[in-house]
Order: sequence, then C-alpha cells, then structure tokens
Amino acid sequence: MTETAKPVVSNAGLGIDELKAFVTRALVSVDIPPADAVQVAALMVEADALGSNAHGVFRLPQYVDQIQSGGINPRPTIRILNDKAGAALIDGDNALGHLVMKRATELAIEKARQCGIGWVGTRHSNHAGPAQLYARMAAEQEMVGLYFCVGNANLLPPWGGTEVLLSTNPIAIAVPALKHPSIVLDMATTNTAFGKIRLMAQRNEPMPEGWMIDRQGNPLTDPKRASEGFLVPIGGPKGYGLALMIGLLAGTLNGAAFGRDVVDYTKDSKTPSNTGQVIVAVDISTFADVQAFKQGADAMWDVMKSSPTLPGVEEVRLPGERTAHVYEERMAHGIPLGAELRKALDELADRLGVARLR
Amino acid sequence: MTETAKPVVSNAGLGIDELKAFVTRALVSVDIPPADAVQVAALMVEADALGSNAHGVFRLPQYVDQIQSGGINPRPTIRILNDKAGAALIDGDNALGHLVMKRATELAIEKARQCGIGWVGTRHSNHAGPAQLYARMAAEQEMVGLYFCVGNANLLPPWGGTEVLLSTNPIAIAVPALKHPSIVLDMATTNTAFGKIRLMAQRNEPMPEGWMIDRQGNPLTDPKRASEGFLVPIGGPKGYGLALMIGLLAGTLNGAAFGRDVVDYTKDSKTPSNTGQVIVAVDISTFADVQAFKQGADAMWDVMKSSPTLPGVEEVRLPGERTAHVYEERMAHGIPLGAELRKALDELADRLGVARLR
Repeated sequence: MTETAKPVVSNAGLGIDELKAFVTRALVSVDIPPADAVQVAALMVEADALGSNAHGVFRLPQYVDQIQSGGINPRPTIRILNDKAGAALIDGDNALGHLVMKRATELAIEKARQCGIGWVGTRHSNHAGPAQLYARMAAEQEMVGLYFCVGNANLLPPWGGTEVLLSTNPIAIAVPALKHPSIVLDMATTNTAFGKIRLMAQRNEPMPEGWMIDRQGNPLTDPKRASEGFLVPIGGPKGYGLALMIGLLAGTLNGAAFGRDVVDYTKDSKTPSNTGQVIVAVDISTFADVQAFKQGADAMWDVMKSSPTLPGVEEVRLPGERTAHVYEERMAHGIPLGAELRKALDELADRLGVARLR
Repeated sequence: MTETAKPVVSNAGLGIDELKAFVTRALVSVDIPPADAVQVAALMVEADALGSNAHGVFRLPQYVDQIQSGGINPRPTIRILNDKAGAALIDGDNALGHLVMKRATELAIEKARQCGIGWVGTRHSNHAGPAQLYARMAAEQEMVGLYFCVGNANLLPPWGGTEVLLSTNPIAIAVPALKHPSIVLDMATTNTAFGKIRLMAQRNEPMPEGWMIDRQGNPLTDPKRASEGFLVPIGGPKGYGLALMIGLLAGTLNGAAFGRDVVDYTKDSKTPSNTGQVIVAVDISTFADVQAFKQGADAMWDVMKSSPTLPGVEEVRLPGERTAHVYEERMAHGIPLGAELRKALDELADRLGVARLR
C-alpha cells in the first residue's frame, strides 16, 4: 500500500483455517461446546492475523490449563444484568473472555443502532485477546468502537509508590475509514509491554531509559533485572491516572476485580479472574453522514501523512497502519508460528489426544 | 485532610462572589444576555477555584476580544441536532463554549438517567475552560463523567513528523467517591502544558528532557527556545495516537475543526473556532448500587494510598486530590490573582467602562 509495506512475515505461515480448526478441536476436547469453540478459535486466530502474537493462539495452553483446573467455566450461562436502552452489564459466568466480549460487543452495537450509543460492561469475564479485536468489531458495523479493561496482572505501582496495584489497563479505539484501513489505536498505559522486555533479555540488549525504574526510582535498563523494578506509565502520573480510571470504570463499576483482587491467571489457573471489560459503540450516523465521516477519516490520514518528518524518519504512521499491512499479509500467506510456540502446541495436542497441527 | 494538605494559596484571595460579579458585568457590557453571563462567570470562576488558573478568569480578555471582533456570537441559538435516546449532537451557534458545554452536559446527564448512558458532541462551540469542569458536573449527579475535546491550538506534530497538526487534546474523567473527594483525572496528551514552559522561561530554569524536542528530534531543554521545537506526547506514539483519536471523535465526527482547520483564538480573534467537544455521562445505578460504588471508589483510594513509596516521595496521590485541597482553600479564602492578571482585568474594566474589581 505504501513504500513501507514490506512483507513483515515469511510466506511460509500456517493456514488460517488449519489454525482455527486446531484451536477448535483443542477447546472441544476440554468440554467447550463446539459452537463456542468455533467462535473463540476465530477470535484467537484473528488476533494472530492482526500481529498480536502475545494475545492470540500463544494463550491456548494457558486457557486449557484454566479450564482443566476449574479456573474457567466451559459451560457458562452468560446473562445480561441491569439492561437499559443504551447500557448494560453482562455477567460472563466465568466463561472464556472471547465469548463474553463477543456477546457484549454485539449488544453494544445493537444498543447504538437504537440509541446512538451503547456502553456494555462485563464482570466474571476472562482474558479476551487484544483490546483492538472488539473495537474493530464495532468499526466494521459503521460504528466507532472503544474498548478498555482491567489487565490480568498487576505490574504497575501508583505513581510514586512501590507496590504493584495496577495493571497496564489497555485501551483501544477504532475509527472506520473509506479508502484507507480503519484507524485503530491499541495501547497499554505503560511505556512498554512486558513482552518486549522479555525479548530484550533474550537478546542481551539494554532497555532504553524510561521503560522501567527500580525500587529507588532510578532508571532500570538491564532487562535481566526486570523483576527488581516496575514498568513506567506513559507520561508518569498521567498514565497512572489513566490506568486507575480505566480500572474504576471496567473493574469497580462492573463489580469486577481491580487493585489487590486482580488474579494473574498465568500464575494461578484455579481462581476465577473476575475480569472486567467495557465496550462502547458510537453510532456514526447519529452524528454525521457515514460516508462523509469515513472520507473525513481518510482526509485526516492524508493530512498526518503529509507532515514533513524528523531526520531519519521515513514517514509518519497512523495508528493501525502497520497492523493493516500485517493482516493483509497473514490473511494471504498464513500465520508464522515460532518454533517454541509450535512445540508447545504439539505437546498440548498430544496431552489432549487431538490431532497436531499439520 | 492529609499531611500534604498545606495551604497552597495565600489567604488574601479575591472573594468568589466579587469575581463572579466582575466577570458577569464585563460580559454583559459586550452584549452577552445577563442570564448567560451569570452562567459563564460561575464556570470561569469555578475553574479558578479548582486551581486551573490558565483556564479561568485569565481568559476573559481574550473572550471579550473575540466577542468584540465578531469571533464569538453573543446572542446564539444553541440547537440540538440528530437527537437519539442516548446520544446527540449540539450546534453551539458559535456561543461562548461554557454555554454550549453546560447545555451538552445537562443533556448527557438527562439521557444517562433514561438510557444508562448519554454521549453528547458539540460543533461550533468555543473554549470552555478546563476539561474537568464538565466531567465533574456529571460526577455531582451520581454519574461518571468523561470529557474530551479538540484543543484550540495545534502544538503537536504527528509522531515522527515536524508539522504541528494536533492539539494537546485533553481528556477528563471524574468518578464520585463518598468519604474522599471525587477522583478526577484532567490531563493533556502531552508530557507538559505550554503554560509550564512559559513559567520555566520566566524563571530562567532548564526544562527536563522529555518535555520538548527540536526539529532534529533532539531533546530541547532551553525554555526560551520553545518556538524552535515541539511538545512531546505522553508515551511517544501512544500520546500521538490518543490526541488523534480524540480529534477524530470530538472534531471530525461532530463536524468540528481538526487538523489544519483548527483556529488558535489567542492569535485570531475574528474567525469562529468551530470547537468540537464530547461529554459522556455514565449512570452508575445502571451498573451498581450507587452508595456501594462510591464506597468502592473510597476503597480504591485507600488501596493506592497504602502503597509504600519511592525514596523521597511522601505519599501516593490520587488524581484530583491536590485539586480538592486547592478548591477547599479557595472556596474558604478566595482566589489569589497575580499582579499581571489583576492589571489586565483592571485595564479591561476601564476599556469596557465597567467597575473594576474591588
């Protein structure tokens, strides 16, 4: 699409359908109803197609572990509580998060069609993949989508503090365009994600200042010492404030976990996480002609692109631009799985007695 | 309230009522209807009481200049367009922004009572004071309030670019508590505000790295060279993304200015700014028992406060905590006006032929 649209992945990726079928049979083998398994598999593979490797199929072994340990309910009854014309609270009955959030997003879109706006919160939900999945779902329906949630591990102290009481509570906003891809922001409220730090540690590379601080408040740049410090929120107290407000809205308001209640399911697969999430759908046609709005988004894309750049910067990027390239590539050529993940999925298949990936 | 609650202002402040009366007579003298002038004056002085000095009475001479130059309409007809049960678009008819936003916030609250949620956007509005004013208005009505807008001056290039195409597009979120003050985040999407840089320049102090970069992308720390560089968004590309998405939602979606259309009214008092804003009210009772939720907010306040602190940090602060102390102090003892502002207001009074402040 542009000069920077170089293929980001190898062409030897695993077929989308094959990967979906694998996730489906793994989930069905641990008592997830087939119709549910198909839905979850589609969303998990969609996450990988969007390049969100750490929130896609990579999580399957953990989910299976939670289901087998009683930490996730394979046969949930997802219920709508406190239903109003424009807003509702959903009790996920400790289902896989994707099922809860898919239902929540569909409901928010339905409400937005009627009322101009739909705001749906969840409680007793679980990890549901990358934030952008659900914001994008709204954008595909002529809506603006906003999503935010309480993350599943506390990694951040309040600003000036040393006890990790906050997650990196992410936020996603998706705006549909016409000739350009949707403009989609998907961000944590910290300067970096933990996954990047692990990568630096593997590569023996120092972290830039600003990613982490140690318990004295000094910059921490050795990724191998990550456990001795904390992530730094974006803009210091501002990112802390954002993480806190998101927690109050997606956690406290929904009756979901926040603060010391948060359960890190990667360390505790037995305790229900009581994850809280919020999806907001804004009906574009309530405010503008839909085509005209999408053209306006295109125009703003072009305006940002037209900016001269700093030395060494090839061009300005829009939020979601790189993701759109990755998605196109992966939908055409499949999803590349690292050797380690492939091995983990093979072992999972053997343990569950289902056919391995081809 | 706590050990850090030292009086922030002198006890010799100007009385709240006296200041309101002054703003009212100044506005009436330039053809603002008295009932409107009273409303605007109350909100402008409220901004000062909240410690938001740069967004309160300080702006009066500019507003008057705009009204006298035809840049603001003193006799507007504010209309509701595209009204749906939960969402609406308001055309401010180029009124003073406070009038537009007060109407928008009241409408959002009304809708939230009916639908669980109210989302109201504005176009043809103007600068309306600090973001927190309207979020707080919702919080006083058992709602969570969210506000964001397109700022009135482009100060930020897209990430990696060098053309200032974005404002510091601020966001405010207000959550009511019970025994503690409301938790209120009010933040720009940049690491610092321009006002702070001007202050550093006055004091001949260097800025910390991270506030600004120059046109080569290097840190700019001399505040006197501010015009040679750009503000840095929080979290780099993340803050840029936030500013952009806020612009699309408060500007483009509402049919308001964004990007190259933004008018800096401090430099051009004749051209209507077509400011766009969004206020969202979330009805707490749709999701939770209101008292229980407020207690939950209190509990989260106490949890954050209970964190041990970094060396040199006395205690963790909550968003809005310092503001609550300032507010209490100023409501009791009045608002301190700097000599320069006092002089500007006296000159304004003389020019308008109204009585000076006492």
